[in-house]
Amino acid sequence: MTPLKVFTDLLAGPVLLDGLREAIRPHELLLPEKTATSVLSQAPDDPAMAEADIILGQPSTAGVLASEKLRWVQVSSAGYTRYDTPEFRNAATARGLIVTNSSSVYDQACAEHAFAFLFAQARLLPQALATRCPNGSREWWALRRGSRLLEGQSLLLVGYGAIGERLVKLLAPFNMRITAMRRAPRGDESVPTVGLDELPVALAEADHVINILPDNAESRGFFDAERFAQMKRGAVFYNIGRGTTVDQLALNDALADHLAAAWLDVTDPEPLPEHHPLWQRDNCHITPHTAGGFKGETEALVDRFIENFERYLKGEALRNRVM
Amino acid sequence: MTPLKVFTDLLAGPVLLDGLREAIRPHELLLPEKTATSVLSQAPDDPAMAEADIILGQPSTAGVLASEKLRWVQVSSAGYTRYDTPEFRNAATARGLIVTNSSSVYDQACAEHAFAFLFAQARLLPQALATRCPNGSREWWALRRGSRLLEGQSLLLVGYGAIGERLVKLLAPFNMRITAMRRAPRGDESVPTVGLDELPVALAEADHVINILPDNAESRGFFDAERFAQMKRGAVFYNIGRGTTVDQLALNDALADHLAAAWLDVTDPEPLPEHHPLWQRDNCHITPHTAGGFKGETEALVDRFIENFERYLKGEALRNRVM
Repeated sequence: MTPLKVFTDLLAGPVLLDGLREAIRPHELLLPEKTATSVLSQAPDDPAMAEADIILGQPSTAGVLASEKLRWVQVSSAGYTRYDTPEFRNAATARGLIVTNSSSVYDQACAEHAFAFLFAQARLLPQALATRCPNGSREWWALRRGSRLLEGQSLLLVGYGAIGERLVKLLAPFNMRITAMRRAPRGDESVPTVGLDELPVALAEADHVINILPDNAESRGFFDAERFAQMKRGAVFYNIGRGTTVDQLALNDALADHLAAAWLDVTDPEPLPEHHPLWQRDNCHITPHTAGGFKGETEALVDRFIENFERYLKGEALRNRVM
Repeated sequence: MTPLKVFTDLLAGPVLLDGLREAIRPHELLLPEKTATSVLSQAPDDPAMAEADIILGQPSTAGVLASEKLRWVQVSSAGYTRYDTPEFRNAATARGLIVTNSSSVYDQACAEHAFAFLFAQARLLPQALATRCPNGSREWWALRRGSRLLEGQSLLLVGYGAIGERLVKLLAPFNMRITAMRRAPRGDESVPTVGLDELPVALAEADHVINILPDNAESRGFFDAERFAQMKRGAVFYNIGRGTTVDQLALNDALADHLAAAWLDVTDPEPLPEHHPLWQRDNCHITPHTAGGFKGETEALVDRFIENFERYLKGEALRNRVM
């Protein structure tokens, strides 16, 4: 077998890249002239891509389609919006190009971030950390009585993939009433799962709505004024999917009207402009798209690639295949 | 049987008190002239206490011992420091007085508060909520890489009662390495449990130390400069027990030196004085003793009392008995 050429634009240190080079030997590692700045954004095209059999990273779709030898791309994020178009899918299918993502790298960190949001809200951390109120004061009673046990509360997961499944498992000891919504329920979900037609009823019942939708043509602007209006008074909205799936101004109106709070890891754009009304809201809590990150993230990206590379060499089915 | 007289100084609304009066009928409910301000602090003595067979609330020890007919006190908190002295214990034993607490009311809320602290720390919420940094910036990378998955991290519970047990159950899906310390390990704990002699080793190994000690003569100032020095660099300290078990200035020094952060629901005094150095520390996060609170707390206090009252009438063993 002719040695394969693996190109990666991963933002990884020399030790990690040397480890990768060693792990795939006798196959060859190609590195770009310029490196990417983020695991989330597109890397610049590089001449070496034209020689690659396999790419690990964030290549442009044009760069991928121009690379004639290319047989497999492993995207270094869970999201793969750039590739999720009819044009790219058709072109990939036509030439037998495989696309995998790195969702299994980010599942647990995203689920733990959702936990941080959910419990910070349940225990009113933003208010409780900001006050110095004495025991027995009116404010103290309001904090104690405003804190809510999760047991018996209802949680709706909008979008149900790897992160949703993980959340259901981790939340099991808390006895919440969990429902999921996905476009095409399969019947093998671990919680009651409704389709799009039953979403208004599910939204009206949920104390907590966690949006985990990916970004694509169908999900863009999914949470608009109408859907927020379907949520009940006092409900809490979370977004750990993609910012583009939410109409931010409609969310702002809903927060002024009937929602108790929102916790967002993603917005559109990121960051929001300086004078955006969501920055001004006491009940809107925003982290800067850090939900998937964790110490060891890049090592895990490389490890999962090596695992898939070994499957590839043996002709086995690849994990996290999306095309 | 002569109807019993139940005195309560609980800070509860008329609906709840009417419900309690109804539930214990034909036994009689006595209410004080003045009400308490907090479930945590001592209520004023009241003439009606002298007639009571049973008290639910926060009576003074003097009031309890002066009440000649009294047979049982159910304290409306998990802590019962005021009663936990040799003098009171001896006097209670001598006259066959039963003392129960309300720990089962507060377990879950305390455990969920600890979850809020643990995950807010793991996901660096204080920093991530305060920034507006763009994807790919140095600060963004620091947040992503500074966030840590809980899996494989070590957690030490100092003090192991109802709250510790609950935490162990709720944390099971996260695969942390959990150890407990209690003065007299019984061998039936659900995690490896060490005694006081092995505490230095356990402190040196733990990434997270959760202090759940109650306040009594033995625990006062338990976490002092020596114990903090035994904790490793980068470890995180949590206090959801009682503020008096920690030397606050020693904690402040440890936070300046080798601890990554502290999350405190309790301090000594509460609140800390205005210019206390712990208020100035970016890595010290304080909530105002709200860990046990939750919507429905007073209803739960009354419900658990009624359950115990029914056991009392049948001559069964009371739950949460502490003397």
